Amino acid sequence: MFKVDLNCDLGESFGRYKLSEQKEILKYVTSANIACGFHAGDPSVMRETVKLAIENNVKIGAHPGLPDLNGFGRREMKITPQEAYDMVVYQIGALQGFLSTCNETMQHVKPHGALYNMSAKDPKLAEAIAQAVYDVSPSLVLFGLAGSELTKAGEKIGLHTAHEVFADRTYQSDGTLTSRLQSDALIIDEEQSVTQVVKMVTEGKVTSQQNTEVSLKADTVCIHGDGEHALDFAKYIKETLENNKIIVSSIIE
Amino acid sequence: MFKVDLNCDLGESFGRYKLSEQKEILKYVTSANIACGFHAGDPSVMRETVKLAIENNVKIGAHPGLPDLNGFGRREMKITPQEAYDMVVYQIGALQGFLSTCNETMQHVKPHGALYNMSAKDPKLAEAIAQAVYDVSPSLVLFGLAGSELTKAGEKIGLHTAHEVFADRTYQSDGTLTSRLQSDALIIDEEQSVTQVVKMVTEGKVTSQQNTEVSLKADTVCIHGDGEHALDFAKYIKETLENNKIIVSSIIE
Amino acid sequence: MFKVDLNCDLGESFGRYKLSEQKEILKYVTSANIACGFHAGDPSVMRETVKLAIENNVKIGAHPGLPDLNGFGRREMKITPQEAYDMVVYQIGALQGFLSTCNETMQHVKPHGALYNMSAKDPKLAEAIAQAVYDVSPSLVLFGLAGSELTKAGEKIGLHTAHEVFADRTYQSDGTLTSRLQSDALIIDEEQSVTQVVKMVTEGKVTSQQNTEVSLKADTVCIHGDGEHALDFAKYIKETLENNKIIVSSIIE
Amino acid sequence: MFKVDLNCDLGESFGRYKLSEQKEILKYVTSANIACGFHAGDPSVMRETVKLAIENNVKIGAHPGLPDLNGFGRREMKITPQEAYDMVVYQIGALQGFLSTCNETMQHVKPHGALYNMSAKDPKLAEAIAQAVYDVSPSLVLFGLAGSELTKAGEKIGLHTAHEVFADRTYQSDGTLTSRLQSDALIIDEEQSVTQVVKMVTEGKVTSQQNTEVSLKADTVCIHGDGEHALDFAKYIKETLENNKIIVSSIIE
Repeated sequence: MFKVDLNCDLGESFGRYKLSEQKEILKYVTSANIACGFHAGDPSVMRETVKLAIENNVKIGAHPGLPDLNGFGRREMKITPQEAYDMVVYQIGALQGFLSTCNETMQHVKPHGALYNMSAKDPKLAEAIAQAVYDVSPSLVLFGLAGSELTKAGEKIGLHTAHEVFADRTYQSDGTLTSRLQSDALIIDEEQSVTQVVKMVTEGKVTSQQNTEVSLKADTVCIHGDGEHALDFAKYIKETLENNKIIVSSIIE
Repeated sequence: MFKVDLNCDLGESFGRYKLSEQKEILKYVTSANIACGFHAGDPSVMRETVKLAIENNVKIGAHPGLPDLNGFGRREMKITPQEAYDMVVYQIGALQGFLSTCNETMQHVKPHGALYNMSAKDPKLAEAIAQAVYDVSPSLVLFGLAGSELTKAGEKIGLHTAHEVFADRTYQSDGTLTSRLQSDALIIDEEQSVTQVVKMVTEGKVTSQQNTEVSLKADTVCIHGDGEHALDFAKYIKETLENNKIIVSSIIE
Repeated sequence: MFKVDLNCDLGESFGRYKLSEQKEILKYVTSANIACGFHAGDPSVMRETVKLAIENNVKIGAHPGLPDLNGFGRREMKITPQEAYDMVVYQIGALQGFLSTCNETMQHVKPHGALYNMSAKDPKLAEAIAQAVYDVSPSLVLFGLAGSELTKAGEKIGLHTAHEVFADRTYQSDGTLTSRLQSDALIIDEEQSVTQVVKMVTEGKVTSQQNTEVSLKADTVCIHGDGEHALDFAKYIKETLENNKIIVSSIIE
Repeated sequence: MFKVDLNCDLGESFGRYKLSEQKEILKYVTSANIACGFHAGDPSVMRETVKLAIENNVKIGAHPGLPDLNGFGRREMKITPQEAYDMVVYQIGALQGFLSTCNETMQHVKPHGALYNMSAKDPKLAEAIAQAVYDVSPSLVLFGLAGSELTKAGEKIGLHTAHEVFADRTYQSDGTLTSRLQSDALIIDEEQSVTQVVKMVTEGKVTSQQNTEVSLKADTVCIHGDGEHALDFAKYIKETLENNKIIVSSIIE
């Protein structure tokens, strides 16, 4: 029996600024990555979002980002591994504060945006982040791009590591995502998206843009919570996975 | 046998900005209040400061402040009790992250600056802060101005609450501190300072500026870690307290 | 012939966070108050907003706020008059930077949110803000609550000062706005709103909630750019004013 | 007759955080680069620093940096040219606000830290910054690393451009500074420093670490205002330059 987790980002509003997140998305995903106040989110948003996730029985993870609210954590910053370690510990802790008030346990940590991308490629940053997660609690699951430096670092240090795949992105023959700068980076067709996911989960393979079969692990699928068709797509992918006898379930049950 | 805790603020540097904190102060105090990134401190400073406190066997507390780095958390802000709750939970959690990496337990929470002063007077804010501390962990100790709304709220909710007194400040007949706007707010003479503390600890009383005897509890004394004579004074007060058979010890041993 | 200015806040988005401002509102207003990065807005939003206002032939003013993005500048902060002076000079200058790149002149300065309210009541803050505006350029117009400490301070220092009135708020017999905490603070009925404005402009009077006639100057009317009916209301008030032979025009033409 | 400007960074304190800048340095330099609140500085510090520079008859320039107070603007961020343009316009404007209150004209703009280094190498960023300076005012002088992309972009757009050299840094045969990661990056010996500067100013050449003679322009020399020997060195370099018949004078007199 195959099994996969569906995760989405959550809690990315800030003060008066509300992102049009679809809260109903929580009916379809099994893990939520909650922003921790650096690239998005604030203490009040975090409290509300934790409550919402718990009510929907969705597992909670920290979604630490770079300290760049104006750039939404999407602009690379040349931070040292030590700085990455420190900002990840800080943000996991901050979110854990709200989980503690609900007697809830954190499932996972997934870096956001530029921090996610940088740690996928840079082994030193990856190790620092894995170490931070491990040091805060060895029972946390580390989410990283499938087959990246981050998952490698997580596995090396002994963390439960979840390889993340994307439904709406195409892959290169080396297993990396096609750059968003390329015209063929995104998969628009929903059926093609879901077919790719089913294949990744059941066969451990994806067909690259170079038409080669690339091996990869697919423990969790990133689902977008914003955009017009977010809810429809989330529902569709969940149903199709289940119709293919794939259990949709959080990493830690 | 009388007993008292000596606490000081710590970890108030930020990035390239170093406050001239005397690290040797840790030889004399028994509890340290570590800034959590809102009014001062940053993730790297927090990590280093936690390490330093542990090495000196000093108990660690969170020192949450208002989100006002430019004003060092000293400017009152009209926040709601819910906002106070949220920012306290966030900051306790963030510091706990670093304690977790050291397998260390947090002893206490002491609000900083304007948040300390506002919660001393405003029962709604005081209750929100006490609730935040309690919800994160009922075993945390809440530090507040002796006899204030904050200690009252802490006791009401069932928290271990430490009444804080000041060595270098004079008191009014209603038990409040003399406003810094008054010329007689500060005690300059070190002997007078220490005599006041010994009396507060052993007799539970302080002589007000109106020459009345005011009852108050003295569980912990605030010691300044900066300034020229900080170390000398810390050493002097500790020795004098011990010479008066007062045990200088953290709140939780 | 009577004349009045219609002003609205603009440029309050920040990074990825977009406020649902109706850009068509610029067809109906004659002055725009552009956020300067403290309570809202960022350099890129400011550039775009300045461009938009110029394209619509709407006069531009700086809308300086408290340094509190998370609270949208709506939480009072106990700043000193000197701090108020400094943050107003800074923000006017920052916006002027973008105006300079367009060879455009700034018309006015209108403090935002809590800074607006605080300076309406506190003469020291009001004087500091008026001084800041005057020192940057004596030809700037100062917008303040009609009959408040801020307009008083502006007039005293010799600034062209515009008294601002509100279409959708009720007034007390002392000329202040009814507190939003009261149930009768807002005027929901659009006809009543516009009737109040016409009376303020043509008679210099408003009928208070205590049913007394209160004198006030009405140089500019605050129009909201967000909300469902914003555009309809803006159009309606402009047309009604013009039908009543009131010229709708910016303060400086 | 040769002529050179001596510039130093100033106004890099923030709130309670004071950098140990030597204010006496203003006796020896002819241009000051004032931080504008992004990497350092705040509105109050800016006002005080502008006043100080004027009192010392030192020309004033804006010192815009990346929005990274915690990293002091020293961490590279992947910003777009448009973002660079916008943040430079904003910061020049903000400083100009304070100059306006003193009826003072800004002489120059010198990017700070990572923004300086990035714009020395990246032609797109360099062009965006030069355009920003030009658009705010074509009479501003652009300071950039001698022979860099930034000075090239400044000259191309028609700005008065000042090539900056360093007294205490060694150069490579391609005219770039030796990376600080190399052990021979810094010149410790003060006589060697000053000899290098005299040669750069009078001969337009520097001897590289590869022992080649490299041509470069030396319009302004960067002097550090902090550190133990800052004042002594500033005095020494000024006297030596003058003894070599080099006029020490600001770019615009």
